[in-house]
Amino acid sequence: MAVRIAGLHDVQAAAAVVHGHLSPAPLIRSYALERELGLPTGRRVWIKDYGWTPVGSFKVLGALNWVARNLDRIGDRPIAAHSSGNFASGIAFAGRTFGKRVIIVMPDTAPQVKFALTRSFGAEVRTYDIARDHETGERDRLTRTIAEQENAIQASPYDDADVIAGNGVGGLEIVEELTRQGRAVSHLFCQVSGGGLMAGHALAIGSAFPEAEIVGVEPEGADDFRRSMAAGERVRLDHPSSICDGLLSYDVGEHNWPILRRYVKSAVAISDRDTRRAMRWLDDVHGLRTEPSGAIATAAALARRADLDGEGDVVVVLSGRNVDGRQFREWTSDL
Amino acid sequence: MAVRIAGLHDVQAAAAVVHGHLSPAPLIRSYALERELGLPTGRRVWIKDYGWTPVGSFKVLGALNWVARNLDRIGDRPIAAHSSGNFASGIAFAGRTFGKRVIIVMPDTAPQVKFALTRSFGAEVRTYDIARDHETGERDRLTRTIAEQENAIQASPYDDADVIAGNGVGGLEIVEELTRQGRAVSHLFCQVSGGGLMAGHALAIGSAFPEAEIVGVEPEGADDFRRSMAAGERVRLDHPSSICDGLLSYDVGEHNWPILRRYVKSAVAISDRDTRRAMRWLDDVHGLRTEPSGAIATAAALARRADLDGEGDVVVVLSGRNVDGRQFREWTSDL
Repeated sequence: MAVRIAGLHDVQAAAAVVHGHLSPAPLIRSYALERELGLPTGRRVWIKDYGWTPVGSFKVLGALNWVARNLDRIGDRPIAAHSSGNFASGIAFAGRTFGKRVIIVMPDTAPQVKFALTRSFGAEVRTYDIARDHETGERDRLTRTIAEQENAIQASPYDDADVIAGNGVGGLEIVEELTRQGRAVSHLFCQVSGGGLMAGHALAIGSAFPEAEIVGVEPEGADDFRRSMAAGERVRLDHPSSICDGLLSYDVGEHNWPILRRYVKSAVAISDRDTRRAMRWLDDVHGLRTEPSGAIATAAALARRADLDGEGDVVVVLSGRNVDGRQFREWTSDL
Repeated sequence: MAVRIAGLHDVQAAAAVVHGHLSPAPLIRSYALERELGLPTGRRVWIKDYGWTPVGSFKVLGALNWVARNLDRIGDRPIAAHSSGNFASGIAFAGRTFGKRVIIVMPDTAPQVKFALTRSFGAEVRTYDIARDHETGERDRLTRTIAEQENAIQASPYDDADVIAGNGVGGLEIVEELTRQGRAVSHLFCQVSGGGLMAGHALAIGSAFPEAEIVGVEPEGADDFRRSMAAGERVRLDHPSSICDGLLSYDVGEHNWPILRRYVKSAVAISDRDTRRAMRWLDDVHGLRTEPSGAIATAAALARRADLDGEGDVVVVLSGRNVDGRQFREWTSDL
C-alpha cells in the first residue's frame, strides 16, 4: 500500500477538527530562558506547553484527528493501540469524545499517572514487559492479537498521516500566535521519537518560516534519528534506553521520515543528566512540572546557547508533564 | 474626581494591548470536574488557568493594560504599587515590557515565590507588617511615601478602570473560545477580593451570556463582598483572615462595585479547609499546582454541585499558582 505523506493542507484541515474540542495549548514568553540563553534584546524565547491539555501531553492532538478522520472505518469496532502512555491517554480521550471503545497496550513500567489518566477516560489497558520486548516482540504481537480477537482497528501512535497532521495543529498555533505578534522563528527545538510531533511541527513551522533552524532532540541512549540523519536513511536501534520513557521508539516512522528529512536541519542528543537539570530548572523557575521527555527540548536549547545566531525567536516544545511525583523528586535531586 | 467605570468596549480595546504581549491563558475542558459535579451529558466544565502566564497569575493582564494606557503620564517616573504579591510581579513584568522602573510594597509574609518573581523582572520591593496594618495603615503610608519621595505614579492593583479592563481580556478569551466551539456559559465561578478579576470577567461574560449565573467566591474569613451584596453597599472588613493571601483586601474597590452589582448574581464564602481540599484535588487529578486563592473557585463549584441547573457550561477560574512548595505540601496533607 502506498504511504500517504501528510502535507500542510492536512494540518490546516486537522485544525478545524482539533479546535472543535480543545483550546490551543499555551505559548509562554520566557524571560528566564532569554536570560539563560543570552539572546540579544529583541529576540524572544517561547515555551509551547502541551502539558496543558486535558491529558497532559501533545498526543491528544493527533489522536483526536485520527479518530475524527477514521470514524466510518471504526464504526462500532474498538480502537487498539500500543503506547508508552501519552498516546494511550490521548486516544482514550479521543475515543471517549467520539463514543468509541479503546484498548491500549502499555509497558508495565509506565508511570502510574499515565495508567491513571488512560483509565480515567474509560480505556482498557493491557501491559507487556518492555525489557524483553526487543526479543519477544510482545508489544506488537499483543496489539495484533487484540486487533484480531476484538475485531479492533489499530491506531499508530505516530506512523500515520492523520496523527502527524493532528500534531501539526500545535505547530500552526505557534505560527498563528507569533505572526499575530509580528514575530518570526529562528529556531525550533522539538522532541523526536517516532517523529509524529516533530513531523507535524516541521510542516507548520518549516512552511511559515523557511529560514528557521528546526532541531530534532533525542536522548543520548535513543539517538536513532541523529544516526538516521547521518546515514541518510532510517536507522533502527535495538535497545533504546533513557529516563525519557516517551522517546524510546526503535526508529522513526515511515510516514514521518520524508517530512523530517525535508524540514529538520539538525539533530541533537541530550544526556539524561542534562534532561534532569532542565526538569529542575523548569520547576524552579517556571513552576512547570514536566516528564523527562517533556523537558529534553529545553535541555537542548540550553546546550546550544552559544550557537543560536539568527534574527528571530527561539521556540522550545514542552511535550508533556506526566511524571509520578516520587520519581520527579528523585530525578530532580542529586544534581 | 469622577470615577470612570470600565465598560465592555474598554475590555475590547485592552485585548489589542494585552494580546500584543501575551498569548491567551488556556481554557481546559475538565472531564474530571464534569464527573465530580454530576452534570448531565452535553454540559461541560472548563478551567480557565491563569497560572499559565509569565507571572503565574491573572494580574499581568490588568497590569499590562494599565501601563500601556498610562505611558505618557508615567514618562520617566517610576511606578509604585502595593500588592500581596501577584499584582507585584504583574506590574513588574509590565514595567519591564515598557521599560519603566517599578517599586512594590508587599507584606513581609508573602510567599517567597512572589518575592522572587517580582524581583526577577527587575522591580524593587519594600515590605510592611501586614498583621499590624489595620492599626498602622503602614501599607498605604509606605506606598504614598514612595510616590512622594521618588516622584512615582501609583498603580492600583484593582481599583482602576484600566486594570479592570485588562483583566477582562481573560473573560473575552473565554467568550471567544467557547463561542467558537458553539458553547454557552451557565455558571461562572470567579474569585473576588478587590474585585478587579471579577469585574473584568463579569463585563465580558455577563455581556455575552446574560443568562449566566456569575458567582463571586471569597474565603469565609474575608467575606466582605458577600456582606456587601447582602447590605446593598460596600462593607469594609477590618481583619480579613484566610490562607488565601491574594484575597485579603479590606473591601471591594469603588471602580469595581458598580460592575459587580450589575452582573454578579450570588456570592459564596468557602472555608480554608475546602480550599485546601480543592488544591489537593487539582494537583492529584489535573497536575495543577495552585495557590489557595487560585483553587477557591474550584472549591466553590464543588460546594454548589447540587445546584447547577441550567443549559450551558460551567467555567471555573484558576487565578494563580504562586505558592511555596513546602507550604503547598503542608496545606494539602492532613485533610
